[in-house]
Formats: sequence, structure tokens, C-alpha cells
Amino acid sequence: MVTSRAIVYSQYGEPSEMIKLYKYNIPDPSENEVLLQSLAHPINPSDLNQIEGVYPSRPELTKELGTNDPSAVGGNEGLFKVIGIGSSVTGFKIDDWCIPKNVNFGTWRSHAKTTENLLVKIPNTKISKTQAATLSVNTSTAYEMLTTIVNLKPGDWMIQNGGNSSVGKDVIQIAKKLGINTINVVRDRPTIEELKQKLYSLGATKVITEEENNSKEFSKTIKDWTKGSQVKLALNCVGGSSSTGIARKLSPNGVIATYGGMSKKPVNLPTSLFIFKNIKAVGFWITANSNNNPQQKLDTINQVLKFIQEGDIADFETDKKIIQLNTASDEEFLQSYKNAINDSKKSKQLIFYE
Amino acid sequence: MVTSRAIVYSQYGEPSEMIKLYKYNIPDPSENEVLLQSLAHPINPSDLNQIEGVYPSRPELTKELGTNDPSAVGGNEGLFKVIGIGSSVTGFKIDDWCIPKNVNFGTWRSHAKTTENLLVKIPNTKISKTQAATLSVNTSTAYEMLTTIVNLKPGDWMIQNGGNSSVGKDVIQIAKKLGINTINVVRDRPTIEELKQKLYSLGATKVITEEENNSKEFSKTIKDWTKGSQVKLALNCVGGSSSTGIARKLSPNGVIATYGGMSKKPVNLPTSLFIFKNIKAVGFWITANSNNNPQQKLDTINQVLKFIQEGDIADFETDKKIIQLNTASDEEFLQSYKNAINDSKKSKQLIFYE
Repeated sequence: MVTSRAIVYSQYGEPSEMIKLYKYNIPDPSENEVLLQSLAHPINPSDLNQIEGVYPSRPELTKELGTNDPSAVGGNEGLFKVIGIGSSVTGFKIDDWCIPKNVNFGTWRSHAKTTENLLVKIPNTKISKTQAATLSVNTSTAYEMLTTIVNLKPGDWMIQNGGNSSVGKDVIQIAKKLGINTINVVRDRPTIEELKQKLYSLGATKVITEEENNSKEFSKTIKDWTKGSQVKLALNCVGGSSSTGIARKLSPNGVIATYGGMSKKPVNLPTSLFIFKNIKAVGFWITANSNNNPQQKLDTINQVLKFIQEGDIADFETDKKIIQLNTASDEEFLQSYKNAINDSKKSKQLIFYE
Repeated sequence: MVTSRAIVYSQYGEPSEMIKLYKYNIPDPSENEVLLQSLAHPINPSDLNQIEGVYPSRPELTKELGTNDPSAVGGNEGLFKVIGIGSSVTGFKIDDWCIPKNVNFGTWRSHAKTTENLLVKIPNTKISKTQAATLSVNTSTAYEMLTTIVNLKPGDWMIQNGGNSSVGKDVIQIAKKLGINTINVVRDRPTIEELKQKLYSLGATKVITEEENNSKEFSKTIKDWTKGSQVKLALNCVGGSSSTGIARKLSPNGVIATYGGMSKKPVNLPTSLFIFKNIKAVGFWITANSNNNPQQKLDTINQVLKFIQEGDIADFETDKKIIQLNTASDEEFLQSYKNAINDSKKSKQLIFYE
């Protein structure tokens, strides 16, 4: 038996105010059950939107764990280590790494128990804990957007805004591996040259600013770059004028796929692009894809793992909130989550168990 | 031999200032040639956009007719009467009605000669000259949008803005015939009740104002109307907030198709519709469809003709500029076109030869 400390919520609202620590005992695993200890998990925007009650996919609030009020454990993705197996478990052994197969797992807890069919094994060589803990949302999103929306061939071009986001950097690296040229739009900043160098070092073909993205003049430069090739895909996680800018760079019959809306402004697309250039606008949501086609999600994870292990997707920096599992007080445990939630507006946050 | 009076332009700019009258002689038809006399043709927005030089599809300027400067004859669609046939013509006889198979024909002229393979015969019973002269753009657009974009089944719903436009009214009538429910958005006006009655009499299921289209409250009313059925298609010829409003009414996986932009504002689509409702946005352009799939266009024309002849699509009012072919002076001839162009902002204009 182990005691799990879980971050739960029983009402929707401001996440840092809604979350509570709840402790419960987990009996030893039997039959096909696997007992897990947390290693690391990100604080994703969708995790927070679930607690705010504004995300269409979210776990039911139940009394399953023994809470007084119907509750859910926060978090959707994360990396666990196997610390116990039931008698009929064949796919896992002690110390194996794994991630949940489905969303709404409730990854924000020190320990969990589930059945082996709901887990995906992750090799624990040539991959960092950060990469393993984040590959099922961000890296998988990047891979599926590049491979399932349009038929991109080596030499084709794509353009994306949010080029410096977590998904954006994965897109750069995976596109590079697939032979696809990328135009990456980022916000201007005093350290723009440094940022450009960082993205070029990941494999970006071109990096431009939002001002350049929105400039009519600059369109000519882009036409020179892409001459004779197709710009088949635009990936949009910003909206507003940034979405207009990247859509304008598409070749006839191109597709703009929206997977986020960081500017909080709607997607803005000129009428003429639809009528005369036959541009299509679609959405992309990894959660829906995983639910509709679980096998594709597994294939994606395996492909992405291969890229990581072969060094095609680099490890990356996050702001880690470290929890010393054996020595952290309950108060410190909960506070680590509150700090991570508060800091998540500034930088990518990872809860790290040591 | 006949003398044709043609409305030509040799420079791009304001249409009423660019057009000139040009007279030329047409020798008798030989072999597979057909000699035509104009009966009626509309002044379409795309005809004017061609002369403005802002339309992506336009005829080449040539000296083919004997003009001093390279020129083109205005107009894309129109109804003609056969007044002469070459020796090998088999599909047409004197007094048959016909329309050009392709765009850029140059319909703004009293007479024309072409080969029979470039013409589509139109029966001249149970159809008005107005209907025959306008079916290849507006009515065909309405039919193809309802039948080629999504798979609409009887009982399904669709929503459109510009419900009172020429295409909008064709959509209402064809949808009615196909058993599809329509929600038709129109601008509010003092005579709104009268307009609603007019659209209901054409077969509209519901008529709402732009204010209702944009109201969160009113969404509930629409949900009640469409309960248990799918809103699979939204047709947009307005843009801006009107496009947002109709897109919000779509069921998950619905499609919004843009075929015009009367508000001159871009299409505005909330990020969440793309990600969480999997809405797609596409464009529709009858010209591209006709070029890509000429047989489909012919099938469309034949289907639309059938609807008209069976009384499913009603005849409609236009502002007719009548040209008395035998008595109009050259000055009057040209002036009729200038008047039609100037009045085309207010109401649908038809040039009518008598």
C-alpha cells in the first residue's frame, strides 16, 4: 500500500484557488493493475482550462477517491514510473516508464493505480524526463499537424505563427527531419536575433517577425524564397491579424489549421482567399483525434519517440518546480502546484518529482 | 452579314468610364458556326470587377474584333437567339435559345458568332428570358453550393446570410425542393415583415435579422428550431460579424462556405469553433468549378432548368434597361449600359433587347 497525494478540485474557477491537496491510500496492485509513481508532468493550458470549467473535454467530478465532494484530479499528461505490478501484468516491469494512453487521467498526483491497457510504455534511454512527460500533447500535436492535414512532400513549404512556442519548436524540428521548409513567425523583441539563431539551430528554414508577416512589401521576399514550390500548410495558434498574415502566404488550395488562439482574437481570413485561392480553414485538436482514432495516436507516439531517441527532436528548457517526494510537507506539495500555475503565464512549467 | 454593336473596354478602371461602343461586321456563319442575337443579360458584380481589373478571371485584351487598341467585350453570361447556322451545325436551328458554355464570352453585344460546341441550348418554354439569362451564374451557384459542399439530406438544416440576394432566393427555393430547412439572415429594415413574407412565400423555413443572428439569447431559439437535426452548412456572402453569427449556428463538423463579401470585411471565425467543433471554412466560386469540371456545370444547368420549368424556382423582378435593337441610336445603346452600371448598386440590372 502507498499513500498518494493528489491535487484535486471540486468546483470550477480560478485554478490556483480551486485546487486542494487530497491524500488517499492505494492498495497493492492485483491482476492487470499497475502501481505508478509520478516522475514529471507539465502544467498545460488545457489543464487549467479544465479547472476553469471552460474546456469541452474534462473529467467527471466523482467521489471515487473518497473525497467528501465530487472531485477530479488535475492534469492530462505526465510521466510515471512503475513501482508495482499485478499478477497478470505482462507488458510492464518494475522501474519501467509509462504515460497514460488517454486524456483526463489525472496526472497531478504522486502515485496512481490503473490497468496496464491504459498505459503506453516509454523507453527510458536517449530521452529526458521532460521530453517523455510532454510528448503526448505538444510533440504529438506537431507531428500530426505536419502529417495528417495536407500531403506535405520534401521540398514543400509551410508557415506557422507562434514559432517559438513548445509546439512551434517541435514543428520546426519534425519538419526539418521530413525535408519540409518552414517559415516561422515570432513576435519582435529586443533579443530577436538571439531567438532567430535559436530557431535556426533547431532547423528553421526562415524566421520572420509578425511585422514582416503583416507587411505587403515583405510578401515579395517570401515569394522569392518559396519560388517554384508550394506553401501548402499554415499552422495558426495566435488568431487575429497574425492568422490573416500566414493565410495570405498560402499557395492556391492551401490549408490553414488552427490549434490555438493566444491573441484571444478570432481567426480573420480575407474573402478573396476563400473564393479565388480556394484556401480551406480547419481546426486541429489532438484530444479529438486521439478519441476518434486511438491507434493513430499510438502510432504517433511511437514515431515521435523514434525522432527523440535518434536526436531529431532536442531536449528543451522548462521552469521546473521540484517536489522532494519523501521530504516535502503537504503544504509544500500544494504550494509547488500553486507556484507552477501562477508562473505558467510566463514560461512552460513542469512539476518534477525527485 | 450583320453589324454587331459591342460594349468594349481597353483599359481597366471605373466601368462606366471605361466602356465604349464598338461596331463591327460579322460575316455569315459557315460550317459549325452559329450566329447569335442578344436577348437579355445581367450586369453581374463580377462583370464590373473584370473591367476594374480586380477579378482573377478575365478575358485577354486583343485586337481580334478589329479595335485600334487591344480590347475585350464585357459580360460573362447572357441569353441569345440563334439567327443563322453554318452548314454542319446539327444541335441548333433558327430561333433556338442558348447561353455560352464558358465565362469570358463577352455577352455585352447585340450580335455574336461562335461555334456550336461553345453553346448550351435552352428550351424556350416555361422559362422567362430573365431566368434563362441568369441561370448559369446565380442559380447554378445556389444549386452547386447546396449539393456539392456537404451531404445534405432531407430534414437537415442550413443557414445563410444575404437571404434576400439573388443567390439567396435561389438557395431558399432549391433547398425547399430538396427538403432542406433554411434559416435565412437578412438586414433589418422598416419593411422587414414584408420581406419575411416574401421569403416565406418562396419556401424559407425561418427568416431572422442580422441582430438576431448576432444575439447570444437568440441562439437558444435556433437550437429549439433545429432540435435533433444537424445544421451542416452555412453559406456566407457577407463576411464580418455576419459570418461569425452563421458559423456559430453550425453543428459539430459543419462547413461554412464563403462565396461573397458584401460587407467588405474579412471572414471572422472564433478559434473555439475550429478546435472544439471541428468547423471547416471553405470557398465557393462557380467559375473555378466550371473550369475544373465542365461536365458538372452542364449537369447543373440541366438540373436547374428542370427546377425552373417545373415551377420550383419562380421568376423574379429585375430593373430592366430595354434596348430597341432596330431603332436605338449608338448613343442610346451605350447609355443603356452606363445607366445599368450606375444603377447596379441599387438593384439587379438586366439589359433587355427588344
